[in-house]
Amino acid sequence: MALFEIDEYKTRIEKTKKSMARQGIEILLVADPANMNYLTGYDGWSFYTPQVVMVILDEDEPFWIGRGMDANGARHTVFLSHEHIIGYPDHYVQALDKHPMNFVADEIKQRGWEKRPIGVEMDAYYFTARSFGELKKSLPDSQFIDGNLLVNWIRIIKSPGEIEYMQQAGKIAGKVMQTAIDTLAAGVRECDAVAAVYHAQASGTPEFGGDYPAIVPMMPTGEKTSAPHLTWTDHPYKKEEAVNLELAACRHRYHCPIARTAFIGKNPPEKLKQLADITVEGLNLTLDAIKPGLQCEEVELVWRNHIAKEGFEKESRIGYSMGLNYPPDWGEHTASLRPGDKTILEPNMTFHMILGMWMDDWGFECSESFRVTANGCETFADFPRKLFIKN
Amino acid sequence: MALFEIDEYKTRIEKTKKSMARQGIEILLVADPANMNYLTGYDGWSFYTPQVVMVILDEDEPFWIGRGMDANGARHTVFLSHEHIIGYPDHYVQALDKHPMNFVADEIKQRGWEKRPIGVEMDAYYFTARSFGELKKSLPDSQFIDGNLLVNWIRIIKSPGEIEYMQQAGKIAGKVMQTAIDTLAAGVRECDAVAAVYHAQASGTPEFGGDYPAIVPMMPTGEKTSAPHLTWTDHPYKKEEAVNLELAACRHRYHCPIARTAFIGKNPPEKLKQLADITVEGLNLTLDAIKPGLQCEEVELVWRNHIAKEGFEKESRIGYSMGLNYPPDWGEHTASLRPGDKTILEPNMTFHMILGMWMDDWGFECSESFRVTANGCETFADFPRKLFIKN
Repeated sequence: MALFEIDEYKTRIEKTKKSMARQGIEILLVADPANMNYLTGYDGWSFYTPQVVMVILDEDEPFWIGRGMDANGARHTVFLSHEHIIGYPDHYVQALDKHPMNFVADEIKQRGWEKRPIGVEMDAYYFTARSFGELKKSLPDSQFIDGNLLVNWIRIIKSPGEIEYMQQAGKIAGKVMQTAIDTLAAGVRECDAVAAVYHAQASGTPEFGGDYPAIVPMMPTGEKTSAPHLTWTDHPYKKEEAVNLELAACRHRYHCPIARTAFIGKNPPEKLKQLADITVEGLNLTLDAIKPGLQCEEVELVWRNHIAKEGFEKESRIGYSMGLNYPPDWGEHTASLRPGDKTILEPNMTFHMILGMWMDDWGFECSESFRVTANGCETFADFPRKLFIKN
Repeated sequence: MALFEIDEYKTRIEKTKKSMARQGIEILLVADPANMNYLTGYDGWSFYTPQVVMVILDEDEPFWIGRGMDANGARHTVFLSHEHIIGYPDHYVQALDKHPMNFVADEIKQRGWEKRPIGVEMDAYYFTARSFGELKKSLPDSQFIDGNLLVNWIRIIKSPGEIEYMQQAGKIAGKVMQTAIDTLAAGVRECDAVAAVYHAQASGTPEFGGDYPAIVPMMPTGEKTSAPHLTWTDHPYKKEEAVNLELAACRHRYHCPIARTAFIGKNPPEKLKQLADITVEGLNLTLDAIKPGLQCEEVELVWRNHIAKEGFEKESRIGYSMGLNYPPDWGEHTASLRPGDKTILEPNMTFHMILGMWMDDWGFECSESFRVTANGCETFADFPRKLFIKN
């Protein structure tokens, strides 16, 4: 059973076809698992073997093409008729002498479509250099067009149903962050705190369960708070050390990331407290400034001006569009809150704004996930913005 | 701090260079996160932006090249000297007008290495079609050679230190599976059972904690047991239904996958009990047959002959080499236990043998992770092989 009404999928496919037509694409091979889900409902951990959703400009229903053993999983999750679910034999899997994209090419040739311009997602995680090479080898006369992010740009504005899942993810996210902060204490092993976080992510609330976020919990401590993207060890947390909590919740593949920093001990360094105040004030100011019609870079400028006054600067972007996704990223790779990004905010665009201030050997971070509303913005989680002190 | 002694990394790099020399590669760009970890110790959830380890045939130390904000994470995890850690500016990240591989190419050009044959991992998950396209665009006169799986084939034989981590993962895996089976009951929500599994995976044992497995827990129930790779819902488990448990534990990125099937209720169908008996007997027989010198396809034949006698066949491979890895797969993409694979077993190769029998609307699975020993094989987990009945 697909998650949304069939009409919603059809609307998404129609929008996709309009973009295809504009770009001169007649056959679109969608390899990004989030895009595959978006267009068909497909949801399974099978993206470690090549698979695509194939959208044809002048045909109603796309095709799902994946590993034979996953065709049953497709039948359970997509809205497509079963004739549009095509499994390839297992001998294509991780073989040296053939590749699933040869099979995909054969499906195109069998239908006589090899002369139609084919769109591919050149920078999608699971569309490897070899995937493209094998397609070109099997379809030597076909014209390929880069359709990277074509579907992602459609995903940037969420439907009411999508917003509802993100709001549910927001409820779980608050619970997840509270669990993390409650669990942190000197002597607790990092892995045990992470275990509690994972438990909260999956169990969700009594009304609805959680799904797996596209990124694992990141809870670096001590000097490692100077670096994002480190995971955990089994060492116990120490007294008088900070912990960065970069967490998330997920509901039906829709995300609400949330980041905070906690300090274990009585005496957080003055510089950390000051940075926390400046960052939280900047977060509040920037959220307050958001409204439809602003460009992404204008949002970033509010933050940039604020911290410049305090003598800080941040090179990296402060946020990005996110929503439906699979590992390794919940970001959508479209709009970023950074200089040069002129994307204009519209209602129901959804972002994660993360103010991660990573210094040489310490850091502070605070984030919110939000949707743009008719007049401003609305965060998905409801959680205090501050440096948490755990005595 | 890298996990292994520096000498172990140096040995791995030496082996890599030998393979490079055999294939005519002078500069190898390693984009597979497991290979990056294997050669340098690098461990972070940063593979969602392009990054490489660059091995140069006639230089001692490789280079780590990744996103600027992850350079601190590299300093915390790799054995390399800090001059060999190179971060690219954040404006390369998910930008439309430039790509991190342009930066990597510039690093090669700055050193005057663009005329040296460059190896790339053509089918590595995070080496996208665009990554390769941008490299070629920035290095128009360079010769590129497919170095796919070059490092993976070195990884296939584990060192004593690696085996020790896999044994630790095996201890956690038993605990994880026991937790899953203990938690399963009619009325328990799938997401709450998964929460308990996640908790067990991360908390590990009192002696050592767990790391995140490369694949999330898969616990399909009812008709969904006919499909692998589906994740969970928040529906309660029902009475008189089977649950496939495809789980794993991980220690320092080294895996021990484990799969079992449980039946909730008093009356498992006869066909399920029969299939369980046949499958477990086949698993036992096949494990007993394993020893160094056998080819992978000969191992599979033991299983194939056994189930043929019982009137079954299984199209898909029954196992694959695995160990160190990152999402989306713990498999190494080298040897598979299937017809046509003539890889000869050697001591300290490590496999996951998974006998997943997926029928039209039901299924049974049972698996073991093992290492090849001097005379046979040794499983990493110690857990009963049978259909579990949960009354």
